[in-house]
Amino acid sequence: MATKLILHQTHHTLADFEGIFKTIREFSKVDGLHLFPELFLTGYPLQDLVLQRAFIDTYLGFQTGLDAWARACPKASWRALLGGLRFEMESSGIPTKIKNVIYELVPGEGLRVLYTKRLLPNYDIFDEQKYFTPGTANAYYDFGGHTFGLQICEDMWASSFHELDPCEDMAREVREKNLNLSAVINLSASPFEAAKRKKRFERAKNISLLFECPFVYVNRVGGEDEILFDGASFVASGARLSLELKHFEADERSFELEALTGDYQGKPNFRPENTWEGLFSPRIDTRTTPATLKSWTDQECADVFLALKFGLQEYARKSGFRKFLVALSGGMDSALVLAVVKLSLSPQQSVEAIYMPSIHSAPASTELSEELCRRLRIPLSYFPIKFLHAMVRNSFTQGFPDPFEGLVDVNVQSRLRGLLLYTRSNQTGAMVINTSNKSELAVGYSTQYGDSVGAISLLGDLYKTEVYRLARYLNENFGDPIPAGIIERGPSAELRAGQLDQDSLPPYDRLDPILEGILSYRLSKTQLQGLGFSAQEVTKVLELYLKSEYKRAQFCPILKVKAKSFGFGYRVPMT
Amino acid sequence: MATKLILHQTHHTLADFEGIFKTIREFSKVDGLHLFPELFLTGYPLQDLVLQRAFIDTYLGFQTGLDAWARACPKASWRALLGGLRFEMESSGIPTKIKNVIYELVPGEGLRVLYTKRLLPNYDIFDEQKYFTPGTANAYYDFGGHTFGLQICEDMWASSFHELDPCEDMAREVREKNLNLSAVINLSASPFEAAKRKKRFERAKNISLLFECPFVYVNRVGGEDEILFDGASFVASGARLSLELKHFEADERSFELEALTGDYQGKPNFRPENTWEGLFSPRIDTRTTPATLKSWTDQECADVFLALKFGLQEYARKSGFRKFLVALSGGMDSALVLAVVKLSLSPQQSVEAIYMPSIHSAPASTELSEELCRRLRIPLSYFPIKFLHAMVRNSFTQGFPDPFEGLVDVNVQSRLRGLLLYTRSNQTGAMVINTSNKSELAVGYSTQYGDSVGAISLLGDLYKTEVYRLARYLNENFGDPIPAGIIERGPSAELRAGQLDQDSLPPYDRLDPILEGILSYRLSKTQLQGLGFSAQEVTKVLELYLKSEYKRAQFCPILKVKAKSFGFGYRVPMT
Repeated sequence: MATKLILHQTHHTLADFEGIFKTIREFSKVDGLHLFPELFLTGYPLQDLVLQRAFIDTYLGFQTGLDAWARACPKASWRALLGGLRFEMESSGIPTKIKNVIYELVPGEGLRVLYTKRLLPNYDIFDEQKYFTPGTANAYYDFGGHTFGLQICEDMWASSFHELDPCEDMAREVREKNLNLSAVINLSASPFEAAKRKKRFERAKNISLLFECPFVYVNRVGGEDEILFDGASFVASGARLSLELKHFEADERSFELEALTGDYQGKPNFRPENTWEGLFSPRIDTRTTPATLKSWTDQECADVFLALKFGLQEYARKSGFRKFLVALSGGMDSALVLAVVKLSLSPQQSVEAIYMPSIHSAPASTELSEELCRRLRIPLSYFPIKFLHAMVRNSFTQGFPDPFEGLVDVNVQSRLRGLLLYTRSNQTGAMVINTSNKSELAVGYSTQYGDSVGAISLLGDLYKTEVYRLARYLNENFGDPIPAGIIERGPSAELRAGQLDQDSLPPYDRLDPILEGILSYRLSKTQLQGLGFSAQEVTKVLELYLKSEYKRAQFCPILKVKAKSFGFGYRVPMT
Repeated sequence: MATKLILHQTHHTLADFEGIFKTIREFSKVDGLHLFPELFLTGYPLQDLVLQRAFIDTYLGFQTGLDAWARACPKASWRALLGGLRFEMESSGIPTKIKNVIYELVPGEGLRVLYTKRLLPNYDIFDEQKYFTPGTANAYYDFGGHTFGLQICEDMWASSFHELDPCEDMAREVREKNLNLSAVINLSASPFEAAKRKKRFERAKNISLLFECPFVYVNRVGGEDEILFDGASFVASGARLSLELKHFEADERSFELEALTGDYQGKPNFRPENTWEGLFSPRIDTRTTPATLKSWTDQECADVFLALKFGLQEYARKSGFRKFLVALSGGMDSALVLAVVKLSLSPQQSVEAIYMPSIHSAPASTELSEELCRRLRIPLSYFPIKFLHAMVRNSFTQGFPDPFEGLVDVNVQSRLRGLLLYTRSNQTGAMVINTSNKSELAVGYSTQYGDSVGAISLLGDLYKTEVYRLARYLNENFGDPIPAGIIERGPSAELRAGQLDQDSLPPYDRLDPILEGILSYRLSKTQLQGLGFSAQEVTKVLELYLKSEYKRAQFCPILKVKAKSFGFGYRVPMT
């Protein structure tokens, strides 16, 4: 008899126990082995939630209910493997150990723990060692005459900074015990990064070759603040990708294990891939002088575009917003933000643009903003700030003897825009989308409480050259939503007469690889010079970067599309 | 011959290798055993700095230089135990293991590793398992015919969430090997919390009783963004506190080991103290109905006051500020902030106050602000916002059809103040000190980019009732800097006519224990009701708390004076 495996690529809000239970009740009509993602029973990442009594009580109640429900089910030929939490409590009810486990759900019998996650990621955004106790043993699962090796997410990754490689340890045990695995099953909650899927497949292929059986990978879908889970579950049979599920969307696929054909002749490559450098997917091309940032492929652009739309919608849905508000400047960043927002809208949603020119805004900025909104069919409000700007200047000149010029004057304009934008947001209940990019954030090229405001940042993980790349991709694939004039004009904050970004910064095609070197490779000044940059520009960039930490500390959440982003996983001293 | 131990309670900026080397050169003229804090050679906490190539290269260069310097020293009777980092590298130069160790420095011989920290704290603000590999063995050190047990910071704490208790493990080994310890030495980098010193002494006493010898504790001094290290190094000889060093100030003390007298007759109490609840120093008095927040003692007020002054000055010094700017409202929070800033000033520094009344500001607010500044001898700028407020309102009424009222109107006033405050800050180069308190932050009772702005928050870890308590303490001990009228009037944001905090919130003497229950105990709604609060008020507070996460996410660093604070150690999902 054929053995059916069903991959459930689920998409639930954190701790949506009702929705999760509903999903379980529905699948249980179908015979076969049902597979659900890591921490399916709670959602991920939970952070301090796992320590809150209200959460613990609710979860334990849910777990007890689920167990009782399964016991009451008639005996049947379905089983389910689901990721969940296991709490070990003191008598006082304080959890002493929390484990990230795989439960088996058996009709007529209930819920039981099969496996505890062995590798707890604790780098970058991951804090699992803060909360969880690791498992100490491999686990196998028998179903339909087959034996399956079990893993949770990080267990599939060897690394130079974990002592243990669970794959190699399982391979050793399989040899010793003479086991014959029909598949390795990995339940995951693995965040999206541009180009990460390729890395996952590569690793999966090697695991499949190592065990000479399919590797079954079930990942969750969800946007948790800045962290995006893309699903894209799959089955690798040796070097062959036998099955792949949707990206950034709930999906379900089943297959018959016996029908899978694979080629397991290759030799697995098991060098540790998770070195610090490998982990942060370096994307600098060092063959050129100076080094350059590798340009995104069309596929990478498509993935990032999908990720941004998904992340925006997840954040809006959970925060209860149906309206969006974007401040246009006539420049590239705000135009791309507006286009992405517009292209992500559902029928019940709307977006409004507001253009707030100052005395330094070029006439072209007005025209290009209008043209952009015409193309996107978005209402544009024109709200000049020159009178308010003049009034603040006059009040200050009367009230204080100090000069009102330079940075003082520049920042007032930016902060007036922030104030007006949020006033408009308060009027309409719209969510303000931030328009800063990663290059700006890295060098502090923004005004705190001015153009840096927003509920969420779409472009905060995209360097300026990537902003241009994505804009061109959208124009090529979505009927030129962005006027060519916006893409072609030089970047300027327009806060002083004739101001251009390039006057105070290296050109972006040099700035961006320097920044990537600093942020992802953590290179020193000497090493950056070795990549072909001048001591002067490297020093300038490092200075700007180091002294703008305080601005990043108060920045909004950034949708994460890279291995190393500003945001939750970025932990540096400020002073 | 007597054995001299010298405790160096040092105060260096992170990675100030020059200053650190200078300190070492100076002490080396004195014979005896010199003790320095945890990670003395680098500073703490370093976070992602330990992964940056520039930092690694500089540190390794410094370490090599130090080793060479010590080798070149003439043989002498001094030794030093110093906390530092140990990097284990791949051939490519990528660190595979980083250890938090104790080095011994020997004149004529150089630097060698004695001990690796066994317990790596990874809760709350601590991320040590992200970076460091733990040690696996106890270590002992022989000097002057004595044997010393070695520990680093967390090693002294047993806990229900660490598998290992290094004290008990060392006690077992001491018995097995029949060792005779003359002291247990603990090199620490342990952050300040109100009432933590008492807990440290208590634990130290028990360790001293366990080993029947003195416990020598050397802690660092420093303010690292929100985290404050208070020094307060000490020697415990059984239940006796033989020596205590200064609080929040570099200090150095020496003593002769043989001259210490102690009473080691008591029985040590070794139950794990670091349960989740013990760790977060709960301060709710549950004997009353409803439960109340325990009031600070005068000593705790003095400690917190010292901590706030120290933290402010550390942040200002490292950010290069000599001027401070505080927005006064006529209310309690801003008055206390101004008083703390004023009382912390050095002769080269100055503070300016600015009062920005709106149409809703009471005349009493003006008078009280003036009276406050008179008492504190601080210049007060009077900058009414009513014209700007009216102009924004008029522009909006002309530009948009939507009503300009309620929250829209309230927030404009607050944001105008934020804008003007930062404009003034840009004019004078002054650091803006935030005036929010912990109760406000917890319920989101503030305007984003409005009254929530600032470079650093002094009161963000103090509940409103603690703000009043500290104000009264300052008045009693520093000649009434704060007018009684400010302490006695009801709290109000003055953004609507006749607005009082109590109209939309439970009274602070009920709100604060509810918040402490949520934040430090992580209590559920049911449990809070069990403490004597009504379902209605608990639900209201929980709702306000949960929906204001996005405001806290963009808040400035908060000087941490409690075990559980908003800030770096507070990690919760936003949506």
